[in-house]
Amino acid sequence: MPTETERCIESLIAVFQKYSGKDGNSCHLSKTEFLSFMNTELAAFTKNQKDPGVLDRMMKKLDLNSDGQLDFQEFLNLIGGLAIACHESFLQTSQKRI
Amino acid sequence: MPTETERCIESLIAVFQKYSGKDGNSCHLSKTEFLSFMNTELAAFTKNQKDPGVLDRMMKKLDLNSDGQLDFQEFLNLIGGLAIACHESFLQTSQKRI
Repeated sequence: MPTETERCIESLIAVFQKYSGKDGNSCHLSKTEFLSFMNTELAAFTKNQKDPGVLDRMMKKLDLNSDGQLDFQEFLNLIGGLAIACHESFLQTSQKRI
Repeated sequence: MPTETERCIESLIAVFQKYSGKDGNSCHLSKTEFLSFMNTELAAFTKNQKDPGVLDRMMKKLDLNSDGQLDFQEFLNLIGGLAIACHESFLQTSQKRI
């Protein structure tokens, strides 16, 4: 039985491979694959964005080497950034309750 | 129903809070909490390490601001590093098969 952390690492790899394998180079997320990932896996986040340029800007910010696609490290930075935002929001909510 | 990515982000936060809440400052993993996390959640990795100093060195390397504990960002760097190592090993295995 994998632990929660092991399951999570497996999921990160599986999700990246699922979306990066949709077209062309399967080691990278193209812009189209990134949009497909965001609109499917993180629809709760994307549907609340009123600014249509937000995903374009996210892609540009995440694409550290500016090659127009996201490698696994760049993808993990996105997940990490979202996790930190959720964690901070959780901490603020808990502090308000005390 | 959360998506696989959302579940994974929730898991990362839950696991960090579970171990960082064991003693003292619940926003950081102390050395003891880090060892408890590694030996429980990543036992498959730690039990194969013959060098008893490996966890000490990992903690030092992850503790970017050298405050003797790991914050959530430093913890995510550990998970990211492990995910990248697993991903690369998977890619090498797939290439050998082709």
